[in-house]
Amino acid sequence: MSQTTTVAEPIAARDAAADTMMALVYGGAGKRAWQSMPRPLIREPGDAVIRITTSTICGTDLHIMKGDVPTVTPGRILGHEGIGIIEAVGAQVSTFAVGDKVLISCISACGRCDACRKAMYSHCRSGGWILGNTIDGTQAEYVRTPHAETSLYHLSADADEDALVMLSDILPTGFECGVLNGKVEPGDTVAIVGAGPIGLAALLTAQFYSPAAILMVDVDANRLEVARQLGATTLINSADGTAVDQILAITNGGADVVIEAVGVPATFDICQSILAPGGRLANIGVHGKPVELHLEKLWDRNVSITTRLVDTAAIPMLLKLVQSGKLKPGQLVTHRFPLSDVMKAYDTFGNAAKERALKVVLSNRE
Amino acid sequence: MSQTTTVAEPIAARDAAADTMMALVYGGAGKRAWQSMPRPLIREPGDAVIRITTSTICGTDLHIMKGDVPTVTPGRILGHEGIGIIEAVGAQVSTFAVGDKVLISCISACGRCDACRKAMYSHCRSGGWILGNTIDGTQAEYVRTPHAETSLYHLSADADEDALVMLSDILPTGFECGVLNGKVEPGDTVAIVGAGPIGLAALLTAQFYSPAAILMVDVDANRLEVARQLGATTLINSADGTAVDQILAITNGGADVVIEAVGVPATFDICQSILAPGGRLANIGVHGKPVELHLEKLWDRNVSITTRLVDTAAIPMLLKLVQSGKLKPGQLVTHRFPLSDVMKAYDTFGNAAKERALKVVLSNRE
Amino acid sequence: MSQTTTVAEPIAARDAAADTMMALVYGGAGKRAWQSMPRPLIREPGDAVIRITTSTICGTDLHIMKGDVPTVTPGRILGHEGIGIIEAVGAQVSTFAVGDKVLISCISACGRCDACRKAMYSHCRSGGWILGNTIDGTQAEYVRTPHAETSLYHLSADADEDALVMLSDILPTGFECGVLNGKVEPGDTVAIVGAGPIGLAALLTAQFYSPAAILMVDVDANRLEVARQLGATTLINSADGTAVDQILAITNGGADVVIEAVGVPATFDICQSILAPGGRLANIGVHGKPVELHLEKLWDRNVSITTRLVDTAAIPMLLKLVQSGKLKPGQLVTHRFPLSDVMKAYDTFGNAAKERALKVVLSNRE
Amino acid sequence: MSQTTTVAEPIAARDAAADTMMALVYGGAGKRAWQSMPRPLIREPGDAVIRITTSTICGTDLHIMKGDVPTVTPGRILGHEGIGIIEAVGAQVSTFAVGDKVLISCISACGRCDACRKAMYSHCRSGGWILGNTIDGTQAEYVRTPHAETSLYHLSADADEDALVMLSDILPTGFECGVLNGKVEPGDTVAIVGAGPIGLAALLTAQFYSPAAILMVDVDANRLEVARQLGATTLINSADGTAVDQILAITNGGADVVIEAVGVPATFDICQSILAPGGRLANIGVHGKPVELHLEKLWDRNVSITTRLVDTAAIPMLLKLVQSGKLKPGQLVTHRFPLSDVMKAYDTFGNAAKERALKVVLSNRE
Repeated sequence: MSQTTTVAEPIAARDAAADTMMALVYGGAGKRAWQSMPRPLIREPGDAVIRITTSTICGTDLHIMKGDVPTVTPGRILGHEGIGIIEAVGAQVSTFAVGDKVLISCISACGRCDACRKAMYSHCRSGGWILGNTIDGTQAEYVRTPHAETSLYHLSADADEDALVMLSDILPTGFECGVLNGKVEPGDTVAIVGAGPIGLAALLTAQFYSPAAILMVDVDANRLEVARQLGATTLINSADGTAVDQILAITNGGADVVIEAVGVPATFDICQSILAPGGRLANIGVHGKPVELHLEKLWDRNVSITTRLVDTAAIPMLLKLVQSGKLKPGQLVTHRFPLSDVMKAYDTFGNAAKERALKVVLSNRE
Repeated sequence: MSQTTTVAEPIAARDAAADTMMALVYGGAGKRAWQSMPRPLIREPGDAVIRITTSTICGTDLHIMKGDVPTVTPGRILGHEGIGIIEAVGAQVSTFAVGDKVLISCISACGRCDACRKAMYSHCRSGGWILGNTIDGTQAEYVRTPHAETSLYHLSADADEDALVMLSDILPTGFECGVLNGKVEPGDTVAIVGAGPIGLAALLTAQFYSPAAILMVDVDANRLEVARQLGATTLINSADGTAVDQILAITNGGADVVIEAVGVPATFDICQSILAPGGRLANIGVHGKPVELHLEKLWDRNVSITTRLVDTAAIPMLLKLVQSGKLKPGQLVTHRFPLSDVMKAYDTFGNAAKERALKVVLSNRE
Repeated sequence: MSQTTTVAEPIAARDAAADTMMALVYGGAGKRAWQSMPRPLIREPGDAVIRITTSTICGTDLHIMKGDVPTVTPGRILGHEGIGIIEAVGAQVSTFAVGDKVLISCISACGRCDACRKAMYSHCRSGGWILGNTIDGTQAEYVRTPHAETSLYHLSADADEDALVMLSDILPTGFECGVLNGKVEPGDTVAIVGAGPIGLAALLTAQFYSPAAILMVDVDANRLEVARQLGATTLINSADGTAVDQILAITNGGADVVIEAVGVPATFDICQSILAPGGRLANIGVHGKPVELHLEKLWDRNVSITTRLVDTAAIPMLLKLVQSGKLKPGQLVTHRFPLSDVMKAYDTFGNAAKERALKVVLSNRE
Repeated sequence: MSQTTTVAEPIAARDAAADTMMALVYGGAGKRAWQSMPRPLIREPGDAVIRITTSTICGTDLHIMKGDVPTVTPGRILGHEGIGIIEAVGAQVSTFAVGDKVLISCISACGRCDACRKAMYSHCRSGGWILGNTIDGTQAEYVRTPHAETSLYHLSADADEDALVMLSDILPTGFECGVLNGKVEPGDTVAIVGAGPIGLAALLTAQFYSPAAILMVDVDANRLEVARQLGATTLINSADGTAVDQILAITNGGADVVIEAVGVPATFDICQSILAPGGRLANIGVHGKPVELHLEKLWDRNVSITTRLVDTAAIPMLLKLVQSGKLKPGQLVTHRFPLSDVMKAYDTFGNAAKERALKVVLSNRE
């Protein structure tokens, strides 16, 4: 995630007189520390302050650590996913109260601007992806969340936090950017390129629409095996360069839906090569450079290519499906750490292949 | 147009014993002749043979003449647009009879295969764009049309042929590939890049949905002036390289719908640079080479990019709007020639800028 | 309009200490008065208080005057349409300021509840149609509007108020309940039953989608003539009981879209009798009793019947089309009165046929 | 099913010289016989003649036996569902050959008319529901099927016929008329009124879209128990008249989707009483009389009510889901008879409650 139109909050402008807390602070490319920071206070009447009980690390946080996300400046507390207990609310907040357990959307939405009126919260004119980006985030003991009324969701006191923290970002992202944009329909053949956490989130949620086949493409045999357990019907190891030919053979000319879940030119290239006539290519991956689009082959193929920063408009629906037992997001969690071990959690998540890590939960519950 | 999955009809396999007729025959890159050819006969039970009364020349025919369309081989009669009188029908044809006046779709559709069942006639497994490509076409005194039942449309005896021949290809193309794929909605801001015949067809049909503004982009001042007369609300001359900046300023951040109606990397690049968040880029242009797609900028912009070979599924609707007077396709016609002057008509159409030519009608009526 | 889930504000609970103003007050069935009332003050942090410059009377106000709307109790100030200047705003209101000219939506929307998240503002859990219903309305010198941030729209200082006040209710109603629900598409045949203001609003906005034919059905020859001027292609006077037969003959078996714009069983019956297979019946009328639905004829006709209380989600789009000159809502205005003559305006509007009245504008500008 | 625009084939006009076969013949209200009849021959070039290997009985056949379907006249062979082996094809049939195993759609579709072009095959101008209605049907050793190219579907030689014969009518009907028209979406609450075969078909196919809850309503405890096994999450026995209150309480105000699968005023009345604001009521039931539609309550509820005669456009998708193992239509089959015992099969199916019968398969395989 990197899109935002808002001005970043100056790092120095923190709440000087406040109590302190511990937080994971970005120190510039390659540098991070678990350190004492001022505890956040309500600033705007729409704010909430939340004591974090569960958080997690996103692939985007690794991008930030490489220095690839220029909107994130040294001194910033990272993290845009989390669950917690409300500690304080501003004067405009009426549907959340101190003591409520809430899920924090990775997207802050004012609910009023033209983008929010279209449920395109990702492009909210005073929100979007700002947590752990242009304002302090959720890998901390406390976080301040703007636009609380339209950016938080009630959870029951006994909620399964390890599972539900997956609804802050990764499951809505797989669903909205991959499955909804790809218009998965019953009977479809779906190919997902990339079996990391985001590709697996697309895999879990693509099954909401009963495709006839789901092909999973990756170079990591372990991740492909996880994909099989989570519902993939065909596994394609793309390490040997024959993935395109294999898929065209298996699908008899291409997949109805292709989901890009990596974000590099090579995987996008596979995706555009395996689209059936009339197919939909839904890009989820965060790309750092342009790709070559073969319009000389695609111009007459009746295809669509879509991009999207997650809006998290699907969170209420996903909550219902978790409650009804039809969605089990805990399947994505491979490792658990106390929040205070977040430094070690980053090491594990950063060595995902070796550690066989998917999602890493950070817990701050007693 | 260049997509087809059918095997080309061998040039030599023509109806030897038939009477002769005059036709425009492709002779290889740069070569064409108006010459005597065997008159076509019914071959398959779904065929019709039609005496052409009106035809026209498409930009694609110019591509063919450059040698850029390898499926077209020397000896082929060109042309995929036309109106005529049915001379003969095969045994399977029951809703058209000898003497009927018909509009010929540029797309031949069997009506039975999986693609046709989805109204994606362009990818019909035994049809698609074949006329004037892999079988002989309509720039001739007679033409054989396969799949007649699902590829022809009844016209009244007194139909305005000059106007209606625009419904064989160019108007459905502008509408389906540009307007429908771009999902133009009331109040939208639409930008059309390219004010040639196809861009103007998109301009005429975009107005079916009452956009608030239509920006027309071209380097030709004459064509821009035509666009103004046909409904464009803002004209942008892109000759000086400032088109993107101008459009971003006028639209306050981008257009809701962008229609690419040229088919070269430079115009595609303008298109991808002027998309609003949530915008739709509908490609109509026939591209000969890849383009650079700036996913590093677009991945989080919630946009779609679509391609399409026209299906001509919209022809019945377009016929209704012509009959009701709400669509006047004759506005695209700038020149008229007798069919027998087709060689001269090609010269005029090939020098469109100098001749101020849009669509050139070929008439074979008494 | 009569739907609301909120508890009505007690008539006695008004702002006792405030200054006074003049207002049109409901006194029970058949009784109304232009009288002095306390001027409203901000009560909730989301409120605005607006000095009314333009208002109008709705058919629903006539229903109220008959005593047919039980949620409206004696002492209530009527009116749910209006334009004015902001006099005061609550603490939560940040995008509107004192002195701004605004359009007031007839629907108050919190922007946060589950209904508002789906843009179904009509069913907002703390709003919906409350103005001039369960709280005081706009036929007064001042009005208090709850949820101001998501229920008001900016207008320029020189806006054409007579035209734009039509965007408070009647145009969004005709468009959303009639045209959007009816899914009008280019080339369609549309029948609108009822040529009163609401049917004419549907007529104006159906043309956004370029139907091939619009049949207008009414018993009033004057209103049918107005319909012709506003774009109807065929007029059907239903006074002689042959409307259904006429329409079935003209449409060759039924209309693609049928819009009910009256609200009584007899007109609904016409509507269900003239639906083509696959047709859409969009009900706008406010019904006071059940209708007989002929499922024994319709069960296999592949039709849809829809109802809707206007959400006014279309107001931003309608504003764009007015600005661009493509929509001229002033065409619906037949009479103008000073706001202080609202008693006389009700008389005129209540005798619409005799007075040839459509919309009656109430003006409070100097 | 009862809709058709075609003229019924005269009973006397059968193929006199043909060989004979056994068939179930309607003899007027309450009368049927398994008797010798002339074996059908090809009449039109689009026909196929099929040797039936599997058939079944539909609730509609029971309606016919009561004399309630006036288009069915004495002497007609009943049945509109079946699987068989092609014995002969007409001159226009090219994608099916003698010896092919095929599924017969209950809807005959020409593939060419305006209705078929919209995939509304039920209203095909020379087809629709004609088998076992206006022409002889499938409860016979042989059947002639018009429009074979667009009304038959290839099956593999080893297909599970008991399961797949459910795709002739009941599964597409439950899916298209109930689930597609009801627009079931992930997380929705769905109520299905009627747990007979058609309601259970809706239940099976509603799960394609992952609703959070499916309430099943019936008066038969056995059928409700079957519904539980097939995926219903809540069972409501409507025998005591409290169904509406129960459902409103459970759903907190109404269901998102309500499917009517009975066809009488009492069940329709339940359906219209349990619709949430914004809800969709999808009628499947075959109604014999009008219903009272409470528009005085529904006019402002933003609901839709749909009807549909099945088009069977979903058959290719359903075949894919059976092949992939995601749909098991055999779950609906409770009884099996040899085709020659069809008289006894009718008795069983006609006493469904007592016999605990759902679908009854008729087998003519060796």
